[in-house]
Amino acid sequence: MPLRLYDDPDSGNGYKVQLLLALLQVPHNLVEVNAIQGETRKEAFLAKNPNGRIPLLELEDGSFLPESNAILFYLAEGTAYLPGDRLGRARALQWMFFEQYSHEPYIAVLRFWKRHTGKTPENEPLWADKEKKGYDALAVMEKTLAGQDWLLGAAPSIADVSLYAYTHVADQGGFDLTRYPALRAWIERFPALPGYKPFSGRLKDTDDRKI
Amino acid sequence: MPLRLYDDPDSGNGYKVQLLLALLQVPHNLVEVNAIQGETRKEAFLAKNPNGRIPLLELEDGSFLPESNAILFYLAEGTAYLPGDRLGRARALQWMFFEQYSHEPYIAVLRFWKRHTGKTPENEPLWADKEKKGYDALAVMEKTLAGQDWLLGAAPSIADVSLYAYTHVADQGGFDLTRYPALRAWIERFPALPGYKPFSGRLKDTDDRKI
Repeated sequence: MPLRLYDDPDSGNGYKVQLLLALLQVPHNLVEVNAIQGETRKEAFLAKNPNGRIPLLELEDGSFLPESNAILFYLAEGTAYLPGDRLGRARALQWMFFEQYSHEPYIAVLRFWKRHTGKTPENEPLWADKEKKGYDALAVMEKTLAGQDWLLGAAPSIADVSLYAYTHVADQGGFDLTRYPALRAWIERFPALPGYKPFSGRLKDTDDRKI
Repeated sequence: MPLRLYDDPDSGNGYKVQLLLALLQVPHNLVEVNAIQGETRKEAFLAKNPNGRIPLLELEDGSFLPESNAILFYLAEGTAYLPGDRLGRARALQWMFFEQYSHEPYIAVLRFWKRHTGKTPENEPLWADKEKKGYDALAVMEKTLAGQDWLLGAAPSIADVSLYAYTHVADQGGFDLTRYPALRAWIERFPALPGYKPFSGRLKDTDDRKI
């Protein structure tokens, strides 16, 4: 059985995995799961991932691997997308933990709100803080990318794949990237990578996606 | 030069690293940084870690590695605390990404609020959601630990070290662990590990710490 990826096409966390599978040309089947409609919280899915989230990779032996960045690491081992040295691997992980803790909770969440809920009494008080911390994360990336083409140096890695997913659609969360020239140049390098696959997205695809 | 760890003794993210250094008996120097008083946001520290967070590991060559779980992975490579097979490494990462995304933002944040701010007009509306999601994370752990001694199976790994840090002091965030017997048995296994080091903590050490 080939790999099977459970994913919601509107999820940047899922797109990370789809992008790496395309770059590495790994054969796989795709199973669409609608997270917005709560499919990830239903019993059939919870039996596969008790944490109730996509993306979820089903391996050849039928076991399941959740967490987008753990999946990236698993797929990239032994390829050019994961450094072969100990410190290089740790640096890739450094950026992926940065992505999940300091980037995604701000940039992905604002994108989600903008696309699905708009301002509500619940999220309105949090909006300004999410924006500030999202820009903080973009500034950290800009600082690194001002001196090198990719986050780990001269070659693209899973650190780049991980952070590209939500960064290249940050405008959908209201983030203005004009002040980050190195970040924009980095984003523009991706479509030239052999095997590159664009983010499909499901909702509002024509009216607010720029890239 | 031996390894140098920049850490705030009240941080569970820092304690993860201190615990693993102790378990692996790795010689190192400790530099105390007071995150609460804003030392991690000052220029001298930002020059070491532009993301302004502890823990931060200074390597033998003077370079810096941030992100607690990336540091754990780096230190554990080649030891019994990181599985030697590809899927085992991915499973360790799965739990560490779970820790940073689905566990720490709820359990560590409520602990922080309880110890440092109490309820405020800003955090009060978020309190109930943090509690619910914290309990969701504990339930995911309980489910796994009901069938095995450690998160990856029969032996302790960096997945356990990572999740132990904030879980064993979850009561400081108001979480009641009595409903999670497997989780409590898991917590009680740690002090018997050779080299185990308790969490020092800095504040309110005597009045609300149980372990």
